Amino acid sequence: MSKAQKVLIAGAWRDSDASGTFEPNNPSTREPTGELYPVSSLDEATEAVEAAAVASEQLQAFYPDGVANFLETFADRIEARADELVAMANTESGLPAPTRLAAIELPRTTGQLRQAAAAARGRTWSLPTIDTASNIRSMYSAIEGGVAVFGPNNFPFAFNSVAGGDFAAALGAGCPVIGKANSSHPGTSRLLAEEALEALKATGLPLATVQLIYRTSHDVGEKLVSDPKIGATGYTGSRAAGLALKAAADVAGKPIYLELSSINPVYILPGALAERSEAIADEFGTSCLMGTGQFCTNPGIVVLQKGPSTDEFMGQVKERFDAAPVGTLLAEGVESGMSRSVATLQQAGAELLTGGSAGAGTGFSYSNTLLTVSGAQFLQDPESLQTEAFGNESLFIVVDDLDQGCEVARHFEGNLTGCVYTDSGGSDDGAYDRIAPLLRRKVGRLLNDKMPTGVAVVPSMNHGGPYPATGHPGFTAVGIPASMLRFGMLACYDNVRDDRLPVELRDVNPGGVARLVDGGWSTGDVSV
Amino acid sequence: MSKAQKVLIAGAWRDSDASGTFEPNNPSTREPTGELYPVSSLDEATEAVEAAAVASEQLQAFYPDGVANFLETFADRIEARADELVAMANTESGLPAPTRLAAIELPRTTGQLRQAAAAARGRTWSLPTIDTASNIRSMYSAIEGGVAVFGPNNFPFAFNSVAGGDFAAALGAGCPVIGKANSSHPGTSRLLAEEALEALKATGLPLATVQLIYRTSHDVGEKLVSDPKIGATGYTGSRAAGLALKAAADVAGKPIYLELSSINPVYILPGALAERSEAIADEFGTSCLMGTGQFCTNPGIVVLQKGPSTDEFMGQVKERFDAAPVGTLLAEGVESGMSRSVATLQQAGAELLTGGSAGAGTGFSYSNTLLTVSGAQFLQDPESLQTEAFGNESLFIVVDDLDQGCEVARHFEGNLTGCVYTDSGGSDDGAYDRIAPLLRRKVGRLLNDKMPTGVAVVPSMNHGGPYPATGHPGFTAVGIPASMLRFGMLACYDNVRDDRLPVELRDVNPGGVARLVDGGWSTGDVSV
Repeated sequence: MSKAQKVLIAGAWRDSDASGTFEPNNPSTREPTGELYPVSSLDEATEAVEAAAVASEQLQAFYPDGVANFLETFADRIEARADELVAMANTESGLPAPTRLAAIELPRTTGQLRQAAAAARGRTWSLPTIDTASNIRSMYSAIEGGVAVFGPNNFPFAFNSVAGGDFAAALGAGCPVIGKANSSHPGTSRLLAEEALEALKATGLPLATVQLIYRTSHDVGEKLVSDPKIGATGYTGSRAAGLALKAAADVAGKPIYLELSSINPVYILPGALAERSEAIADEFGTSCLMGTGQFCTNPGIVVLQKGPSTDEFMGQVKERFDAAPVGTLLAEGVESGMSRSVATLQQAGAELLTGGSAGAGTGFSYSNTLLTVSGAQFLQDPESLQTEAFGNESLFIVVDDLDQGCEVARHFEGNLTGCVYTDSGGSDDGAYDRIAPLLRRKVGRLLNDKMPTGVAVVPSMNHGGPYPATGHPGFTAVGIPASMLRFGMLACYDNVRDDRLPVELRDVNPGGVARLVDGGWSTGDVSV
Repeated sequence: MSKAQKVLIAGAWRDSDASGTFEPNNPSTREPTGELYPVSSLDEATEAVEAAAVASEQLQAFYPDGVANFLETFADRIEARADELVAMANTESGLPAPTRLAAIELPRTTGQLRQAAAAARGRTWSLPTIDTASNIRSMYSAIEGGVAVFGPNNFPFAFNSVAGGDFAAALGAGCPVIGKANSSHPGTSRLLAEEALEALKATGLPLATVQLIYRTSHDVGEKLVSDPKIGATGYTGSRAAGLALKAAADVAGKPIYLELSSINPVYILPGALAERSEAIADEFGTSCLMGTGQFCTNPGIVVLQKGPSTDEFMGQVKERFDAAPVGTLLAEGVESGMSRSVATLQQAGAELLTGGSAGAGTGFSYSNTLLTVSGAQFLQDPESLQTEAFGNESLFIVVDDLDQGCEVARHFEGNLTGCVYTDSGGSDDGAYDRIAPLLRRKVGRLLNDKMPTGVAVVPSMNHGGPYPATGHPGFTAVGIPASMLRFGMLACYDNVRDDRLPVELRDVNPGGVARLVDGGWSTGDVSV
């Protein structure tokens, strides 16, 4: 067996004080990738937290320009090493190298890093607020301590713990990051962290600003997020693991931002089906099977009203599911999770329309799967029937009428997204007006006539939603500058002398930062 | 014994399904006020939560104009009944009727209600964000469900559970409130709720928009904040009770905003003492003894550098403490809490400079108290020596030098405020530059040359801070519109037809609401 890879702690790559090792698999072959990774001990995690706390104090002197330079240099370095990164991520994730990893995910990742740099420099995230009569001024600025980032399996670049959305948001706010790599792509994380360290050196930042470990025991993970010296945690992944971390962080009073499971209900109203059933079946099939369904915003439930059009629509979707190739899943655990979830749904009364078998494609895989259940049955066991099957699966809920459709909406848990499809002629408008207000407060993002899987990285995006989709309905994991607020504290200055204020709160405003001055937005100077 | 007062549930005053009763005291006489109040059962609390959930769904149709009308009508009605309210609050709290309750606190309370109405109408809190290329739009809007508000004992009006800051913020965001009165002023809360109900009737809002109970067991309180149908909780009060509620809410994934204890450290640097020792002693004495020290932002720790000026300053403060009248405390529990805390501080090594005896004034009271401890001793037991003595008490920490002063700052828990006094000539500037960055991230509000007790109700105020001062460093309990964000969710609209959007997100913007459009603030229309 080869030697375990090194961890990045306090600015240096070094052998891990490992409490064990693990081997990642290539999901396309079901075979180990040939690399060995360490499981970090509590001592090692604690050392990282302490180094991050020191870096957190030091980093204030480099904010925003030094931090922004680092983020941009890091983005450049990622692009310079793109081929190697894409090859490694493809080996570890099974995701298509050219169409997904190289063409979409890598540019998104470097784009996020550059957006965070721009938001730091332009101070667009800090919401400076000034009241001249009382001479009180406030803004958001970095919390104290490092941010632990636990990345998910499904985006080896864009949500990577040392390069993805949470990383960019934390760094952009001025916080060091301790990355806990997702165990399914430790090699990709390692290559990214190598570039991060070189970028830190090139830009003169504290070297403990980015650290990387690969795996911990549950116990060590819980101690990490609740350490007195940690600042906050960003977590994207399974509900069970996330809630265990949340419980530990909550007791310690440490902010933790979770992006957990979501089934993303889609209502397709009768007029829409009558108008464009085939087109919607196309959209749905593409959205649900893209990336083998392994998106947080995958449409896992479709609510339809009983009738011939619905039967026809379900048939059209079934055709597409049967005809589509069966994609590769990210890991063995995803495959077994699909089997477990589909069994749970069936036990709760859902019937299999198609699919339902593991290992139907190349490598880790599960056949493209559709289930169906009546609205009445859903209302008898809404909890079981909202079990997430993370992958290429969806459940049709066929309701008797609009009233039952509304009642189903009232029983949804918090979700990242919810969609309503209506016709263009207006026949669905009355139903929309009843469904939408109910769905609105169950979801972070409400869509019209559009599937939920595209998550644009724009300021207005909300990749968040009510519990248990996330831990708090006021925050988003995607979209800069809003996602940076998770790693800021509200910092108020009362009667503080002008030359001691952060530049964005001083009387003169040469950068033209937008500020809420005496209740109105202004980009000008303040006269006192 | 008289009959227990009625609770306000689901729009009607009615006899409580009480599991017990309690009698509030008049703190000035140590005698019961003569009124009897019920302890609400779990059934009653649950009924309130369910009525609030229904009101929460209904209230959306009345937002913002109906809600704003209600808040303004309620404020008018409070003013019309001011004499009776002030008399009741004086009886229940012992706070001075004309100088404090009538002149300061009641106008602040009605001002907050009117500010919340204006923020709702003007949509200044919702941060509308629009990206035209992707047609994604987002804003903050009301969370689903009612907000439970637990008010503190020290502001019978301005933080009252059915009229104070949390109430105004929740209503302003569009959420119904379930008030849990502070047990030391149930009568004041009852009179306020009477006016709230009349204001709801006058403005046609759902009558369950404001409900009131007076006390629950700990167990029922924990069930209330974690009920699946509650939206969120605002709590101001003791750390122990707050953390028990937080634990329950956290497990249920329900947001809870806590404003807990804070000792509000004040650094007085040597140059400042040399320049204006007497003036600072005056400021400190006034700040620490005002309201018998019963403010969340009372300066409970003063850090001074060893030397003759510091000895002299401590003597000057002692003179003022000895000469000042001993005020009345809000409740028997505050008096016994002072005794307990002072004993804890003494056991940890603090020495009594003056005071230290219970019952030294009229009614519930404790002598004006000063303690002192060395920096070295503080660093040996920083936890015990940060015990809050809620009332007319403060602890001097006398440090050897600047390095020790910095080390003390590193050991502070999260606080609402931190102050640094420096001289005007610049001799303290080097020390300031070392202390301030450390203190900055331990506190929500950093002050220069000013005591922390004034909390202006302005947009830039932060009455919040890192744990354990509050439960999350990103939120403030005072200051509109920011305090309203606690009761909002981030609501994103993706490809939603223009006429289905909230007015603040539509293309045309006749109200001139400030919106972040394509990355820049604008008050104009959007052209797509």
